[in-house]
Amino acid sequence: MNEAFLKALEALLGPGRVLTDLPDRIAYGSDNSRRFGLPLAVAFAEQAEELPEIVQLARRHRIPITPRGRATATTGAAVPSEGGLVLSFERMNGLLEIDPTDRIARVAPGVLNADLQAAAAAHGLFWPPDPTSAGYATIGGNLACNAGGPRTLKYGQARLNTLALTAVDGCGRSFRTGAHVRKRAAGYDLVGLLVGSEGTLALISEATLALRPLPPARGAVRALYGDASAAVAAVVRVLRQPVTPTAIEYLDPQALALARRLGGAETGPPGALLLVEADGDEEELPRALARLSQALTGEGLLELQAEADCGRLWEARRKLSPALRQAASGKINEDVVLPIGRLVGFAHRLEALSAEWRLPILSFGHIGDGNLHVNILFEAEDRDERMRAESCAEALMQQVLALGGALSGEHGIGLSKRPFLAAALDPMTATLWRELKRVFDPDGILNPGKLLPD
Amino acid sequence: MNEAFLKALEALLGPGRVLTDLPDRIAYGSDNSRRFGLPLAVAFAEQAEELPEIVQLARRHRIPITPRGRATATTGAAVPSEGGLVLSFERMNGLLEIDPTDRIARVAPGVLNADLQAAAAAHGLFWPPDPTSAGYATIGGNLACNAGGPRTLKYGQARLNTLALTAVDGCGRSFRTGAHVRKRAAGYDLVGLLVGSEGTLALISEATLALRPLPPARGAVRALYGDASAAVAAVVRVLRQPVTPTAIEYLDPQALALARRLGGAETGPPGALLLVEADGDEEELPRALARLSQALTGEGLLELQAEADCGRLWEARRKLSPALRQAASGKINEDVVLPIGRLVGFAHRLEALSAEWRLPILSFGHIGDGNLHVNILFEAEDRDERMRAESCAEALMQQVLALGGALSGEHGIGLSKRPFLAAALDPMTATLWRELKRVFDPDGILNPGKLLPD
Repeated sequence: MNEAFLKALEALLGPGRVLTDLPDRIAYGSDNSRRFGLPLAVAFAEQAEELPEIVQLARRHRIPITPRGRATATTGAAVPSEGGLVLSFERMNGLLEIDPTDRIARVAPGVLNADLQAAAAAHGLFWPPDPTSAGYATIGGNLACNAGGPRTLKYGQARLNTLALTAVDGCGRSFRTGAHVRKRAAGYDLVGLLVGSEGTLALISEATLALRPLPPARGAVRALYGDASAAVAAVVRVLRQPVTPTAIEYLDPQALALARRLGGAETGPPGALLLVEADGDEEELPRALARLSQALTGEGLLELQAEADCGRLWEARRKLSPALRQAASGKINEDVVLPIGRLVGFAHRLEALSAEWRLPILSFGHIGDGNLHVNILFEAEDRDERMRAESCAEALMQQVLALGGALSGEHGIGLSKRPFLAAALDPMTATLWRELKRVFDPDGILNPGKLLPD
Repeated sequence: MNEAFLKALEALLGPGRVLTDLPDRIAYGSDNSRRFGLPLAVAFAEQAEELPEIVQLARRHRIPITPRGRATATTGAAVPSEGGLVLSFERMNGLLEIDPTDRIARVAPGVLNADLQAAAAAHGLFWPPDPTSAGYATIGGNLACNAGGPRTLKYGQARLNTLALTAVDGCGRSFRTGAHVRKRAAGYDLVGLLVGSEGTLALISEATLALRPLPPARGAVRALYGDASAAVAAVVRVLRQPVTPTAIEYLDPQALALARRLGGAETGPPGALLLVEADGDEEELPRALARLSQALTGEGLLELQAEADCGRLWEARRKLSPALRQAASGKINEDVVLPIGRLVGFAHRLEALSAEWRLPILSFGHIGDGNLHVNILFEAEDRDERMRAESCAEALMQQVLALGGALSGEHGIGLSKRPFLAAALDPMTATLWRELKRVFDPDGILNPGKLLPD
């Protein structure tokens, strides 16, 4: 069966397009989650037109397809957990069009976020999603996971910045949905349905994206508070005045200490930090920052500092996720979202969890959207610590759901959050998800084992 | 069959909840499209909990359900074109919660847009969609049609401002989807799928909406250009600089002349008008308007005027749609969307269409999104004019599609735009729409005859 499939696939794609050697299969077996599955083979998609045949072939042979950009997913969404074919889009990386008049880009799915940004910048434009992995993450992957990043607060996630898609479903049916315009009230929003579906409904073969004018100036304010409660109160004040910041990033006391070490900063007073960034034109920016500073000022504020030091600290903030890999040999990173009104309670629960499970917990992230990256650190070699970390993560997710939060803000569900879906999803919504999956992929060959509840 | 259904429905809902007298049935038989269908009966929804039973009862008896807010739809979306039950949500109008910390409102579907705005304003907040009908249109209807309005340009349509929904599908299955948070990457976006689905997939019983801080100041600039081409070039300049206006409204020369008459203004020079509105804080606003004025300045500009006169002209702009009813006894209003880069060509084609079909055509609307309301005027009593108007509308829609545009920006498809769907939709996308419809409503009892292609 597998042999016949591989032979037919090689015949379809031609030489150099299908890898079956073990080292190659291993190399394409994991993503940034460090989970692993050994695929039967790796194939490189090159043309949108050939995708229907690839899917039909796989379907006839009941071979799962795991679509893959550059595998920066943190959830296992790009791991071939059920074997089968890894279909890499890395070679399908054409920047098809930049339309500066309509501020629209049309790209193949393997284009890197950073390459799109560079091409758009040449026209004074940008695409809002800015995940930390932008330099080596593909647009296809950004769309699959509804990617965000700090400036989502002002400009929205991938779904809000996607206008049209061409895709191929699990039956090999190619379809185009959406339009080269920014406003629509014309039927079912398949664009929004595909974005965030983690490759379980269709393979995206082309995307039409909404760009925005690059703001000529950016600036930031750094505010240090005595505790999480004072920092959250400041976030609420900022969000209720009319200047929308580009980003409000938060570092809890543990994350702040680590960021200071990374940034080479002197030890400062302990506390919770907010970095508030704004953009705009050169004349308006100082006024916007003054307004934001005013909103940041209130009870519990220890230090308020404009711009000067922010570059270094922001850099350190960006290094935090990878650096945690050095700080401890194991980490569980839960990308959760809380209602702003529940963040203080959540901070207290994190302290209690850390004490209960005797493990360091650091949280930081895009607090303006309520989106925090909570990191539980442990020694990977220590079986007892590892098990405590897993129990702690489970307790954490229960707390998030109990507080009315969401499982993921921007990383997605993949493999790693599936165990929590049953508790998070309304049972009838779960049923509808499964029924939608069957419409697009009746035999379940597209990225099986991901996203959907059992 | 019908008798048994009505008896069971009356037993379920109790006295005063089901109307079967002819005058009542006639009163609930049309919407703002002036299309008409005579329903079997009218029922008033009062509680979310009773919706599953109403739907199950209708399904057992194969009775269509046409959900209805206040029937401001311009497309026939609220017309019971296949008879059956009109289910009115006008009594289900509870403002359930305003959460100022998270800037979120939770409402029953029958709440009027204006009532939500008033309640939100008490907390210094607003909900972005602002259709002209806001004073008498329900949130449920706004969601059904993915309502927009002028300030969509800056703040987005209904879909982008909806966080969670509770709804009942065509099998009577109640489900909750989305969350009380502003950022999500957790599976299939059923919220986005239901918004804009015109009641064909599910009845919305509760909506959780994203509010924004009310800007303390607003201002506008009015710019008159020699022709459409110069006005569109100005729109492009405005959209490529970093100050996002709240709205860019356009009046073509015909619409401008009518607006001037309505506003009691002296006759001015002929031309195409842009009204550009901005909001922000008091100090920032003048600078934003200066920046916008700078972008508006260019070839073909005849007059540039700040604020002073704008109130009256804006008012006249709002009166345009209803006033067209007086200007001619018949009008066809096509709410189309064009790529900005195609608007000049589109203006020329409108002139050609007007000449070819010997009918006045006025266009105005939210040009910043490429969303124009094109009005073809005719004498309703004149059979020849009426037929020419219909042919002209058909030719118009063909032009829109040929230019890469979309059938509707904010009014939706309903009954009136269904004939154009076959040409507008990719055939496989149309198939997927039908398959999605079957998931939610296998017997096709929810708003049959609307939105979906034949």
